[in-house]
Amino acid sequence: MTISYQMPTKVLMGHNVVRQSADLISVLGKKALIVTGARSAEASGALDDVTAALKQNRQSYLIFNKVMSNPTIACVYDGADAAKKEGCDFVVAVGGGSPMDAAKAIALLACQDIPQSDLFSGRYGGTVLPMAHIPTTAGTGSEVTPYAILTNDAAQTKTSLASPLLFPNIAMLDARYLKALPHTVAVCTAIDALSHLTEGMLTVRSNMMTDMLATEGIKNIAYCLGALKNGLLTDEQREKLLYASMLGGMVISNCGTTAVHAMGYSLTYFKNVEHGRANGLLLAAFFEFLQKNEVEKVSRILELMGLKSVDELKKTLDELLGKMDPLSEQEIVQYSRISINTKNIGNTLVPPTERDIADMFRASL
Amino acid sequence: MTISYQMPTKVLMGHNVVRQSADLISVLGKKALIVTGARSAEASGALDDVTAALKQNRQSYLIFNKVMSNPTIACVYDGADAAKKEGCDFVVAVGGGSPMDAAKAIALLACQDIPQSDLFSGRYGGTVLPMAHIPTTAGTGSEVTPYAILTNDAAQTKTSLASPLLFPNIAMLDARYLKALPHTVAVCTAIDALSHLTEGMLTVRSNMMTDMLATEGIKNIAYCLGALKNGLLTDEQREKLLYASMLGGMVISNCGTTAVHAMGYSLTYFKNVEHGRANGLLLAAFFEFLQKNEVEKVSRILELMGLKSVDELKKTLDELLGKMDPLSEQEIVQYSRISINTKNIGNTLVPPTERDIADMFRASL
Repeated sequence: MTISYQMPTKVLMGHNVVRQSADLISVLGKKALIVTGARSAEASGALDDVTAALKQNRQSYLIFNKVMSNPTIACVYDGADAAKKEGCDFVVAVGGGSPMDAAKAIALLACQDIPQSDLFSGRYGGTVLPMAHIPTTAGTGSEVTPYAILTNDAAQTKTSLASPLLFPNIAMLDARYLKALPHTVAVCTAIDALSHLTEGMLTVRSNMMTDMLATEGIKNIAYCLGALKNGLLTDEQREKLLYASMLGGMVISNCGTTAVHAMGYSLTYFKNVEHGRANGLLLAAFFEFLQKNEVEKVSRILELMGLKSVDELKKTLDELLGKMDPLSEQEIVQYSRISINTKNIGNTLVPPTERDIADMFRASL
Repeated sequence: MTISYQMPTKVLMGHNVVRQSADLISVLGKKALIVTGARSAEASGALDDVTAALKQNRQSYLIFNKVMSNPTIACVYDGADAAKKEGCDFVVAVGGGSPMDAAKAIALLACQDIPQSDLFSGRYGGTVLPMAHIPTTAGTGSEVTPYAILTNDAAQTKTSLASPLLFPNIAMLDARYLKALPHTVAVCTAIDALSHLTEGMLTVRSNMMTDMLATEGIKNIAYCLGALKNGLLTDEQREKLLYASMLGGMVISNCGTTAVHAMGYSLTYFKNVEHGRANGLLLAAFFEFLQKNEVEKVSRILELMGLKSVDELKKTLDELLGKMDPLSEQEIVQYSRISINTKNIGNTLVPPTERDIADMFRASL
């Protein structure tokens, strides 16, 4: 038995947790940079809760609400400049994966002068602003990961900053915030969480401990698949999705992701396909590929989902996500070349060749 | 759904993990205080591995091997004095619960001048020496808890120092070290782990996340019960016990323990009963007591253990631990009065009265 495991973030989940546990935010600093997107933090009610908690704590704050989907490198340098200029000494991230990831890079860049050329190096000094992360979607799990994934134009893909420094100090999860999500976003983010959970089990780094977390998460998502299809999520199901998403974060914190993420990044970078949907569109072909060598593990995952075969998984995902237009052969060649050069490939339980990747693209779209 | 969860220690488990992951120790400091007992660290081979890793890292060390079972307050002040005098800037704990707990108190007292009267207050400053914990038993789970439990003569019981500061930085688990354990120690410590896992599920703080960890741990112990009875543990079973013990630590880090620990401390303090055995002797009576109000949860735990009833649990534990001599009525009254004043009582899913506690003592011994 081999285990390698770490996830230092303190997790609090519950109804009204931000206001009720405001004292945990009070120790983080004097002035917060609230990092968020243009709208969702406000619509969900999370931003109100955060500002109320900060006021209650007599902490001041500045709202940096310029984080776009798939945040750019320029965006996080901007955020760090704002934090430095305004003397913010901690960060509160509110939103989906994009604000939560951007907030980590901002917390790092506000403390350390790292040139763009070293941004993805992982070689950082020891300091970072303290962080509290508050998800408003149930997908990314970023609130409990050491990753900040940014659009990397130089490499024409998305690339992660990865360092244990980037684990938030606190994650506060309140499923009420998910109520404001458009149903398509709820579906795509749930499939992102499913992707993290299943991919984690299919990496070279998976172990008994991470498989336990993944198993729990997959079961909770499976419980919600029917409601995700018919658009009628209950409060209980939203909680289960948020819990599963967090477990997915714990899994990839320790296991990383696979070829699915490597390939999905191309669909997002070049075709603007939403991240969770991109992974979901590729997942069945990946299972099909892996099943040749890892029958038992793939079968176990399907069983956890209550599915009989990879075909049934494909049908389920197609139903949830719809089909996307096929790629040209030229695009497939280009994306496969980019994917094969990501570190996710070597992390896959059976690493695909460039040709395998192209075949998976063809089978998926 | 409400979750409160934290366990920041980095966990590494595997064959020869101390020597293979020596680099993780290298970042902790320049000179280690190795905190251990008189014998077990050496007998297990763990001490050799630790000193080899430190030499490989060119780190110097001092061995403080004066930790007795159920360590005293004087012992941890001595250890802290040694660390300060010799300029040790990190701690490596090697052993069972006693050295691992003592090491945490030493790491704290080496950095902060805390008078004995404030030792159990939990009000500490922010500094503590970095720690690596290496268990040589599979029971306490101390390598992943924020607790250091010491003999408290003023209160005539054992009392815990508790602070997130006391989570070790790294836990390194190698099941080879368990081979050197006398079988009675293997049994008593395994039952300690079982006690942590089951008690955690029966606290007011248990939640989906901690129940997941407890469930996994209980299943792994159940897998080994037969071998614990017949004394023929395999390498695989030792790994499972070590994993389960660590999961038990994660559970009590977040849930705390119950009346069982409160009562068990009296048996240890006054009758010198080994800690795991003390808990095990009381567990069935506690289940019997709780079953009146919490039928479902008690049944779920029994089912995880592959047992049909509390009677069967009692039979199993009696077989593993033997009976102890009955207590006098005077002793029962005294121990019940001490137990009712511990904080573990209010943490129990159904808090027992002083009379309930006396009844559980009577039924157990």
